Amino acid sequence: MAVTTLTTTPQAVTEAQSRCGVAAAAPIPRGEAERRATLLKAVADPARLQLLSIVKGSELGEACVCDMADAVGLTQPTVSHHLKILVEAGLVTREKRGTWAWFALVPERIAEVAAFLD
Amino acid sequence: MAVTTLTTTPQAVTEAQSRCGVAAAAPIPRGEAERRATLLKAVADPARLQLLSIVKGSELGEACVCDMADAVGLTQPTVSHHLKILVEAGLVTREKRGTWAWFALVPERIAEVAAFLD
Repeated sequence: MAVTTLTTTPQAVTEAQSRCGVAAAAPIPRGEAERRATLLKAVADPARLQLLSIVKGSELGEACVCDMADAVGLTQPTVSHHLKILVEAGLVTREKRGTWAWFALVPERIAEVAAFLD
Repeated sequence: MAVTTLTTTPQAVTEAQSRCGVAAAAPIPRGEAERRATLLKAVADPARLQLLSIVKGSELGEACVCDMADAVGLTQPTVSHHLKILVEAGLVTREKRGTWAWFALVPERIAEVAAFLD
């Protein structure tokens, strides 16, 4: 179902204003909620979670793109597409060295996304 | 881009097998990645993040549906749709009391989702 109306400024509901007589907290602002949703969507994908787990589990703290397609059972273009989304979200970095591109986690960015659920 | 092929069993790539000569970790299994992605998608939406923030910020630890539509600037059916997704994901509980439905967080479920990013 699509969002039909956007709020202006989110506001707390006081006890007096509330239909049930109980005060309610203000939501986070819509713009901030959209920013957070975009970052959460970047990780809310099975292939991207698998790719992140490869990078995270790598001894050197980075993983080469060369074996990722085989490891997750996807084609190389599909893997590249998913890695691009992770890079654009700032969750991993990409460095080309010689023949291959290497990917490393950006731990502070991942921690930021996890903190949305705190 | 759609996922074109599903992997069977994810496997680590040894140094000898690797195209770049560096060992790579095995990804999390596809089924587990899909389960995690489903839960992350439940929170990866601006309206649902706003609704969660209302419930989380409520003094009583629960919020009445009655004022949520006004608070986030959406229609009541849209808010109900989003709350249903959160309930189905186990992230909030719903209890009908009198006229209104009340929603409370399930902290251990939210912590589980946050831990996917650890």
